[in-house]
Amino acid sequence: MNVSKPAALEDAKVTHQLAQFIVESKYEDLPSDVVKEASRAIINCLGCAIGAAQHDTVQFAVEAFEPFFGAPQAQVWGRSERADILHAALINGISTHVLDFDDTHFRAVHPSAPVLPAIFALAEWRQFSGKELVHAYVLGVEAEIRIALSVFPEHYDRGWHITGTAGIFGAAAAVGKLLKLNVEQMTWALGIAATQSSGLREMFGTMCKSFHPGHAAQGGMAAALMAQKGFTSSIRALEAKRGFGQVMSSRFDPAVITTDLGKQYEISKNMYKPFACGLVVHAVIDACLQLRKQHQLKAEDIASIHATVGPLVLELTGIKSPRTGLEGKFSVYHAMAVAIIYGAAGEDQFSTEVVCNPAVEKLRSLMEVKVDPQVRKLEGYVTIVLRNGKQLECHVSDALGSLVHPMSDEDLENKFKGLTSKKLSADTTRRLLDQCWKITQLNDISPLMRATAVL
Amino acid sequence: MNVSKPAALEDAKVTHQLAQFIVESKYEDLPSDVVKEASRAIINCLGCAIGAAQHDTVQFAVEAFEPFFGAPQAQVWGRSERADILHAALINGISTHVLDFDDTHFRAVHPSAPVLPAIFALAEWRQFSGKELVHAYVLGVEAEIRIALSVFPEHYDRGWHITGTAGIFGAAAAVGKLLKLNVEQMTWALGIAATQSSGLREMFGTMCKSFHPGHAAQGGMAAALMAQKGFTSSIRALEAKRGFGQVMSSRFDPAVITTDLGKQYEISKNMYKPFACGLVVHAVIDACLQLRKQHQLKAEDIASIHATVGPLVLELTGIKSPRTGLEGKFSVYHAMAVAIIYGAAGEDQFSTEVVCNPAVEKLRSLMEVKVDPQVRKLEGYVTIVLRNGKQLECHVSDALGSLVHPMSDEDLENKFKGLTSKKLSADTTRRLLDQCWKITQLNDISPLMRATAVL
Repeated sequence: MNVSKPAALEDAKVTHQLAQFIVESKYEDLPSDVVKEASRAIINCLGCAIGAAQHDTVQFAVEAFEPFFGAPQAQVWGRSERADILHAALINGISTHVLDFDDTHFRAVHPSAPVLPAIFALAEWRQFSGKELVHAYVLGVEAEIRIALSVFPEHYDRGWHITGTAGIFGAAAAVGKLLKLNVEQMTWALGIAATQSSGLREMFGTMCKSFHPGHAAQGGMAAALMAQKGFTSSIRALEAKRGFGQVMSSRFDPAVITTDLGKQYEISKNMYKPFACGLVVHAVIDACLQLRKQHQLKAEDIASIHATVGPLVLELTGIKSPRTGLEGKFSVYHAMAVAIIYGAAGEDQFSTEVVCNPAVEKLRSLMEVKVDPQVRKLEGYVTIVLRNGKQLECHVSDALGSLVHPMSDEDLENKFKGLTSKKLSADTTRRLLDQCWKITQLNDISPLMRATAVL
Repeated sequence: MNVSKPAALEDAKVTHQLAQFIVESKYEDLPSDVVKEASRAIINCLGCAIGAAQHDTVQFAVEAFEPFFGAPQAQVWGRSERADILHAALINGISTHVLDFDDTHFRAVHPSAPVLPAIFALAEWRQFSGKELVHAYVLGVEAEIRIALSVFPEHYDRGWHITGTAGIFGAAAAVGKLLKLNVEQMTWALGIAATQSSGLREMFGTMCKSFHPGHAAQGGMAAALMAQKGFTSSIRALEAKRGFGQVMSSRFDPAVITTDLGKQYEISKNMYKPFACGLVVHAVIDACLQLRKQHQLKAEDIASIHATVGPLVLELTGIKSPRTGLEGKFSVYHAMAVAIIYGAAGEDQFSTEVVCNPAVEKLRSLMEVKVDPQVRKLEGYVTIVLRNGKQLECHVSDALGSLVHPMSDEDLENKFKGLTSKKLSADTTRRLLDQCWKITQLNDISPLMRATAVL
C-alpha cells in the first residue's frame, strides 16, 4: 500500500537523504555537459586566484597564518608558499573571491570559492585523479546550492553572506566524497559544517567578504576530516528545530534540498563574469565591445555616447569622474570608456593608472547615461554618435556571461590569460589550460596544482 | 551645550567602545578579588581538560588534525602532543568542555573554555608573563559575557549555543590584548570574530557541543592574528543592521556591552561545579555529603531516603536504574547514592563500574524523590531514615558551587586532584597548583604549560 508520509516525517530525513545521495553517486552518473562545465569553472577559479594572489587581503592572511602552517602538502595558488591542506584551502578560498570576479550561480552563491580550494588541496596531497576531483566538485556545488536555495532569499535578506554560510556545506560534501565517507559519516560532516556556518553581510566592503569562502573551504574540509575519524554531530543538522534551516532563516523549504537529486545538476546554471566589475554594467560594456569590433571604432572619432540602462546602474555605479581603480569599478562611464579604448574590461582596465589616463578621462566626459526602469539587469542600450555625424547603435538583451549568452571556452581562456599573464609564462599557461580542459584524464592532479605556483 | 545624541548614533560606537576599553585597560586596574578569581578559574579549567584529555571526543579531534599540526608551539593539555597554537587552542577548548564540568557564569556561557586555551597557547609560545595572561583573560571573559548578555536569552532560545557564539569574541579580545592591538585592530578582531560566530544547540548530546568552545578559541585567536596584520572587517560588527546583534538575535541591547565597563568584572560571577553531573541535582548531593559527614553515615545503616526537589529534576535526571556511566549522570538516585557511599560525586563516581556496583544499586532502590514546584534550581531537601528509626534531615538552599555558597580554594584543589590523579604525579600536581595560585608572579607561563603534559 502506498501511503504518503506526513511532511514532518519526510523532513526529518533531509540531511540523511542528501548525505546518501552524495555517498551513492557514481562518476558515471554525471552527464558530459556537467563534466565539461567543471573544467570551465576550474579555469575561471584558478585564473581569479592566481590573478589576485598578491592582493593585500591575501598577503595579510598569509602573513597572519604562515607561522602556523603545517607540512607543505598543498600549493598556495599564484604564490611561492606551500601549506598544510587546511591553510591552503583557506588562502586559496580568499584569493579566488577577493576580486569578486569568480563564478556565480544564476540565483545565489559563488559556488567554486568554498569548494575547489578545499578539494584541490586534499587531492594534491593525496594524489587523487581528475575524475575523482570533478565528481566531488559537482556534488559539493550541488549540496551548497540546494542548501542555499532552501533558505534563499530570506536568509540572505536577514544579513547572512550565503557564499559563506552555504559554501561550508559544499566543502564538507566534496571533501567527504573524496574521503569516501559512509552515509553516517557524511551526515556528521554536514552537521559539523552546519555548526560552523557563518558570515555576515555587514562585512561587505572589507577584507572579510573574501574571508568567508576561505573560512568555508577550511571549515568544511575540517568537518569531513573530523567525521571520518568518528567525531559525531546531530544527524538532523539541516532540518531540526534548532538546526541550520530554522535557526538561520525565517523560511526553510527542505524539499528544495531533496527533490530530484541527481536528475539535474546546479553546476549547469553557473555563470562567469567577463568583466572585472559589477554585473549591472556588463550589458553596456558588451555593447561597446561589439560596436568597437564591428566598426573598428577609435576614441578620437567619437562625438558623444548615450546609454540607457536599468534602474540600479546609476545607484551602484554612478561615479562620473573616478580617481582610483576602485572608484573606476563603480563608474559605468569608466567601464564603457575602457571597453572602447582597450577593447577589454579586465582587472588591468580598472587600475588607477588607466582611470587617470587623459584619453579615458576625455571619453568619459562625452557620455550621457539614462535610467529606464523597463531595462533588465543584464540588458543595455548604447548609441555612439561619431564626429562625422554617423550614429552606431547596439542593444544587448543578455550580456555576455549570462546563461543565455555564456562566455565561450575561448573567452574563458582569454580571461585566464588576462589575469595571469604577468605571473605565468606562456608555456605554463598553455600547459595549465590544457590540463584543466582534459582534467578527467589526469591520474593525479598534483602536477596541475604545482603549475599554479608563482616563484 | 549638552545635547544628547539620538540612540542610533550612540549605538554606532558599541564595537569601538568595547575595543577601546580592552586596549586601554591596565593590569593595575583589576581589583585583587578579580585577579584571585582568575587563579581559581584556571585551576578548574586545567583540571577539567587534563581529566578529559583521553576522552573519545578529544582523541578523534587529535587524530583528525594531527596531520596538519604546525610547529610544536604549545602543549596539548593532559596529552603528549604539542601543536601550533591554533590547533592547541582548538583541542584544549574541546577537552576543557567535554565533561561539562567547566565553569559557568551565573547567567550564561561557560566563560573559560573559549578563552583560556587560546591565550595560554599564545602565551606559552611567546613566553608571556602570568600578569599579562590574567589581564587578557579577565578582559576576554568581560567581552564574551557582555556580548552574550546583550542578546540573552532570545539568542539562546532561537537555537544558538552561546558558549560558542559569544565565546569567540572572548578569545579574540583576550588574544588581541596579548598581541597589544591598537583600537582599530581590536575592532577588526571583534569583527572577524563576529563573522565566524557559530554553534547550534541542535548539537547538544553530540561531540560537537564541546567542539563549539574549541572552535571559538581557535577562530577568535585567528581573528586577532589577522587583525594584527591589517586584515580589515566592519568596525560596527556588533551593532550594525547586518551585524551580530541583529542578525543572530531577535533582541539586542547594546547598552549591556558598554555600560559601566571597568566598574565591575563579570569573572566575579563565575561558578564552578563541584559534582560531575547536571546542576539540578547538586543540592541533594550537597545535602547527602553534609549528612554523611555530620553523622559518619554508612549505607548499611540506611532504611530509606526521601528527597524533595525542584520541577526539572525528574524530567532531566529521572533514571531510577541506570546501567552505564552516562545514564548515571542522568539519575538523581545514583547521584545521591554515590555521595553517601563514596563521599564524592566526581567523574570516577559516574563510571559504568560504579553504576553497576551492587552496593550502589541497593542504595538507589531505597530512595523516593518528590517534586515540589516551589523548590528552586540549586535547592533541595533530603531526609534519611536509619534502620534504627532515627531520621536525619538536611535542607540545602544554595548548593555548593553557587555564588552564595562557592567552592572553597581547597574544594577546587580537591576537584583538580580528583580529575588528574591518574595522570599526574602528586609532585607535578602540587607544583601545578602552586603555580596557578601564584600565577601573577610568573615571568613566563610556559613551564606551567609544559607541566600539563601527560607522556
